Amino acid sequence: MLFEIEIPTRKEFELIDITSMINEKVKEAKVKEGIAVIFTRHTTTALFINENESGLVADVKEFFEKLVPKGEGYHHDRIDNNAHSHLRSIILNPSIAIPIKDGRLLLGTWQSVIFAELDGPRRRKIFVKICKC
Amino acid sequence: MLFEIEIPTRKEFELIDITSMINEKVKEAKVKEGIAVIFTRHTTTALFINENESGLVADVKEFFEKLVPKGEGYHHDRIDNNAHSHLRSIILNPSIAIPIKDGRLLLGTWQSVIFAELDGPRRRKIFVKICKC
Amino acid sequence: MLFEIEIPTRKEFELIDITSMINEKVKEAKVKEGIAVIFTRHTTTALFINENESGLVADVKEFFEKLVPKGEGYHHDRIDNNAHSHLRSIILNPSIAIPIKDGRLLLGTWQSVIFAELDGPRRRKIFVKICKC
Repeated sequence: MLFEIEIPTRKEFELIDITSMINEKVKEAKVKEGIAVIFTRHTTTALFINENESGLVADVKEFFEKLVPKGEGYHHDRIDNNAHSHLRSIILNPSIAIPIKDGRLLLGTWQSVIFAELDGPRRRKIFVKICKC
Repeated sequence: MLFEIEIPTRKEFELIDITSMINEKVKEAKVKEGIAVIFTRHTTTALFINENESGLVADVKEFFEKLVPKGEGYHHDRIDNNAHSHLRSIILNPSIAIPIKDGRLLLGTWQSVIFAELDGPRRRKIFVKICKC
Repeated sequence: MLFEIEIPTRKEFELIDITSMINEKVKEAKVKEGIAVIFTRHTTTALFINENESGLVADVKEFFEKLVPKGEGYHHDRIDNNAHSHLRSIILNPSIAIPIKDGRLLLGTWQSVIFAELDGPRRRKIFVKICKC
């Protein structure tokens, strides 16, 4: 089964915990054993899995702002002022595959699925594809 | 179904848009709903999804050349002069899973699948595994 | 089929080749054609695919120690002294999908699946989900 989830974002750089949204779709799909492929359709967003702790969320933002600073004379900025957002997105992931067991994502205790808005605010869409296997 | 695609590369660092090659295989597989797993078999190449715009392509190259400079006294360089290529490959992805709907990859408007040659030129091979689900 | 593999780690930063463990599970599953999804359940570990060469292993460690230094005044360090481990894990991957053919992972000659312990030593667990398709 395939689900589309809309994620309205509110900031330029925003990390949103989407674990519960995905678990809801896994339940709806009624797939007991399989995998979920989470996929973002945008070139200035990304997905990753880690702990949703406010200090760490701040660290992730600060780390990427330092690693790929905004407006460093990028070529792409002549067209669209967001080369840094694309580069940050390339370092992270557009898709993640997670095993499903007993109708639930097999995430560890501290793992959340995080949607990274890297050039917001915008209305974003991700896909959750659930395969029985 | 499993497909092998040969990608001859022409430069040391080259970013090649392989979206149409993969979509061709998805069509050939006649899988309407499922996922495509794209996998590169080399330790000095990678795959990512982003916008194929010439300015951005130049930015990606310059960013990685600065982030992981060539010949920085790496240990692996004693054996094979390409430690920087391996390190760049590790930061990027060797495999990407993309949902398929109505016989097509569910890519967003600006998304292309990009093959990154990080130690060319060489003859490279990737696999496209298409699963119905 | 779903397998759990326990990986006891012995160092703070350790790279462990788990290719043979995964190939064993692929054999046990008796799946001839399909995909394997390898998934780590921890927020301070990661998975990547590359060459298991001792010089390169040292390069990877040194690169990440320089890219994300320990104890740089991270916010998360107030709670748990391992923000650097989380950040390194976010840059790498928690999950990898690999095609299976003739009952074996379709890895290239130089490719190994590497488990990265980024905050050890600990007892870790990964999942190997094998899908026939």
